[in-house]
Amino acid sequence: MSNSADKYNFGMIGLGTMGRNLLLNMADHGVAGAGYDKDASKGALLEEEGKNTKVKGFSDVKEFTASLTSPKAIMMLVPAGKIVDSVIEELLPYLDKGDILIDGGNSHFTDTNRRVEYLESKGFHFFGMGISGGEEGARRGPSMMPGGDKEAYNVMKPILESIAAKVEGAPCVTYIGPGAAGHFVKMVHNGIEYGLMQLLAETYEVMQRGLQLKNEEIHQVFIKWNEGRLQSFLMEVTRDIFGYIAPGSDHLLLDDIKDEAKSKGTGKWTSQVAMDLMAPIPTIDTAVSMRDLSKYKSLREKADQIYNQSSLALDVDKEAFLTELEQAFYFSMVLSYAQGLHLLSKASEEFGYDLKLDEIAKIWRGGCIIRSGFLNEIYNAFQKAPALPHLLLDEAVAALIKESLPGMRSVVSKSTAVGIAIPAYTASLSYFDAFKSGRMPSNLVQAQRDYFGAHTYELIGKEGVFHTQWVEKI
Amino acid sequence: MSNSADKYNFGMIGLGTMGRNLLLNMADHGVAGAGYDKDASKGALLEEEGKNTKVKGFSDVKEFTASLTSPKAIMMLVPAGKIVDSVIEELLPYLDKGDILIDGGNSHFTDTNRRVEYLESKGFHFFGMGISGGEEGARRGPSMMPGGDKEAYNVMKPILESIAAKVEGAPCVTYIGPGAAGHFVKMVHNGIEYGLMQLLAETYEVMQRGLQLKNEEIHQVFIKWNEGRLQSFLMEVTRDIFGYIAPGSDHLLLDDIKDEAKSKGTGKWTSQVAMDLMAPIPTIDTAVSMRDLSKYKSLREKADQIYNQSSLALDVDKEAFLTELEQAFYFSMVLSYAQGLHLLSKASEEFGYDLKLDEIAKIWRGGCIIRSGFLNEIYNAFQKAPALPHLLLDEAVAALIKESLPGMRSVVSKSTAVGIAIPAYTASLSYFDAFKSGRMPSNLVQAQRDYFGAHTYELIGKEGVFHTQWVEKI
Repeated sequence: MSNSADKYNFGMIGLGTMGRNLLLNMADHGVAGAGYDKDASKGALLEEEGKNTKVKGFSDVKEFTASLTSPKAIMMLVPAGKIVDSVIEELLPYLDKGDILIDGGNSHFTDTNRRVEYLESKGFHFFGMGISGGEEGARRGPSMMPGGDKEAYNVMKPILESIAAKVEGAPCVTYIGPGAAGHFVKMVHNGIEYGLMQLLAETYEVMQRGLQLKNEEIHQVFIKWNEGRLQSFLMEVTRDIFGYIAPGSDHLLLDDIKDEAKSKGTGKWTSQVAMDLMAPIPTIDTAVSMRDLSKYKSLREKADQIYNQSSLALDVDKEAFLTELEQAFYFSMVLSYAQGLHLLSKASEEFGYDLKLDEIAKIWRGGCIIRSGFLNEIYNAFQKAPALPHLLLDEAVAALIKESLPGMRSVVSKSTAVGIAIPAYTASLSYFDAFKSGRMPSNLVQAQRDYFGAHTYELIGKEGVFHTQWVEKI
Repeated sequence: MSNSADKYNFGMIGLGTMGRNLLLNMADHGVAGAGYDKDASKGALLEEEGKNTKVKGFSDVKEFTASLTSPKAIMMLVPAGKIVDSVIEELLPYLDKGDILIDGGNSHFTDTNRRVEYLESKGFHFFGMGISGGEEGARRGPSMMPGGDKEAYNVMKPILESIAAKVEGAPCVTYIGPGAAGHFVKMVHNGIEYGLMQLLAETYEVMQRGLQLKNEEIHQVFIKWNEGRLQSFLMEVTRDIFGYIAPGSDHLLLDDIKDEAKSKGTGKWTSQVAMDLMAPIPTIDTAVSMRDLSKYKSLREKADQIYNQSSLALDVDKEAFLTELEQAFYFSMVLSYAQGLHLLSKASEEFGYDLKLDEIAKIWRGGCIIRSGFLNEIYNAFQKAPALPHLLLDEAVAALIKESLPGMRSVVSKSTAVGIAIPAYTASLSYFDAFKSGRMPSNLVQAQRDYFGAHTYELIGKEGVFHTQWVEKI
């Protein structure tokens, strides 16, 4: 017979690095954690890593659930998709009404909607929570985006706040909204991440091919930038990668890595959902496209032979151009966040999430992959005007954008002239230029649609829809 | 009692303009056509429009189906989605085994897959067929993309070939492939259409704002271009729109049309599916985004006030720049087709469609919205090399691209420098520049993924996947 001394306060299903690290993080904060994984070696690893704390690994679901205090609080950290459903089914016989189940993975928000309904109907508390921060974040303090069952969140709140990253003392976790709001916001977080990563890759391309800088010079640029207004976790990561030489090697490990970027789908989902919601996010779409294009190595090599006859070197003053490039990165970084946040505000309307964009910016400032100095500006903008319809309309942000615009235009204009591929930079600038068009040329598109498909058009200052026979019938 | 003299060879469900026009087209070719629409006025309109031919309108499904010769051949031309399913259910009690049902609308290919299975299980022949050409095409000769039940297609082939557009005597219809291949190809056709329309709108923007041309000057440019290698139906449409002044008006109707471009979803579907298939089509994605952005009029007007302080005038020689603009349009037009066709070849692999891209180019040369002189080049490329993996790798196309590249670079470089929004142009050039990169900077993206998420990376010339602890653990 077990007594309460053998009981654990929190259960984790899926003892990969993320799951183990979260449990160890909790244990550091006095939460006794039980972990379950069919692979018993994972449980053993957990116990070894947490040998000075109260954690235990199980490979039997019955023993695992029996080890938890009541009401049971269990998090799943397993790959998105059908596995989540099968874990739920495996678990259900051992749950009691009132138990709390959390999906801490990257589930698609529509799956989370379905599961919320299903588990509520069975009397269980369920909430979907996006977690960002990677391995290190999970261990030392992630950013967490819980949505759904608020009552259950409130029960878990003390634990989650204790393990979250802290910025100026504030924990990077807050209740996001009803339904699948947590997973939706995490998905868009990842979409922004795709945009920023692609921009960093293009920055590398411009420095390498356009300015013909050596790796160590590029390293110095990233070191410098990370000390200024471009400070961010992804900038740090990039800086470190440009400083990493494998033991026994005489050059960057980066140079040996295949130019094929993989993905797990959250960026793609962001783009697909944005299209459904009619919220354009072309910088993110482009990042998704470029990950895809990276997979066509042999086609690209053939195309290189056919088309790449000239050098891509820029005929510019290096130092002056690097100043412009810093502006261009800043501009495009702002555009990535702005597009993502615009998508969030559309989703909030459409799905009734009632998102607090200032709170979201606040919990993104620490722990997560897209944390950056600029998130303070975003936080300030939405604090000042919670209903701000678009970040680019904030006065302070507008001032920053205007200041960076000359550098942005110069980098795009010069790089496209010589043939350096900067798709996310150009997508950011083009989006901006279209967004600042009080009048777009889309009247022509609508006229064309009416011409060939009788789809009608609307007129300025006149109610109704109209159709014209643009040419005489044959 | 009806005798065979009262019988009709073909039935049409949905008597909107497209449905009526297709029936009238058939009647011109000796096919007696019965039409069904719950709105009896549509049937009356059909009979009036076809008063010298054998057509009849019905508003009762039983009478309609009873009027058809056996085996019945019926086409649905109704809005995509649930309506198609409800029409099928309404019709089923009146169908006999061996009857042929055709979905001629813009159904999503996954719906078509489902219906193929469903109707086959009930013993009916069913095929999905994309039809392009708008009202006029339906009446005078559309381009048709039938896929699915080949046996049924062969029965219908004589009628379909008789009503199709003809190019050099060849009908613009051919069996596309199994399953939903017809609807898939039509969807991608529409995606390319989105790209071309957006490029024309941006061309208008460059001429209007950059070159500050008057409408009549723009009209002359489109007239001239349509007589050269840019000849296409959409160029004709655009030319005509720039020539249309409404009765009693003193200026182009175009100027009065709201700059809000609507859409029915086929472009969006193309982009979403392309992301699922990992076939990048950024020019088309951008066109979808810009239709969406056009809907945010009030945000754009606010942004215009904040950001648009300077003129967008280009400081260039007008005639020389127009020559470059023609090259830029040609380049981007080729890129739109190339991306769409690459998506088709990926889909063909993935879904086992066994698409013949030369045949598809051939039937797109007439009747459809994206018909153009350039389709002959595409036809030639895939005739020569049916397994050509990407249009840009064809030698003749490469020569055309290289010739147009200087103009393309100049237009993008100069327009982005002054702030003219040319998102589809920049997306086309950026895609090209990335495509011709034998080595992309995506090694950095994969290194970043490994750094924060332990997602591993691959090495050049070495089997396996690897993970690195990029920095010391804290």
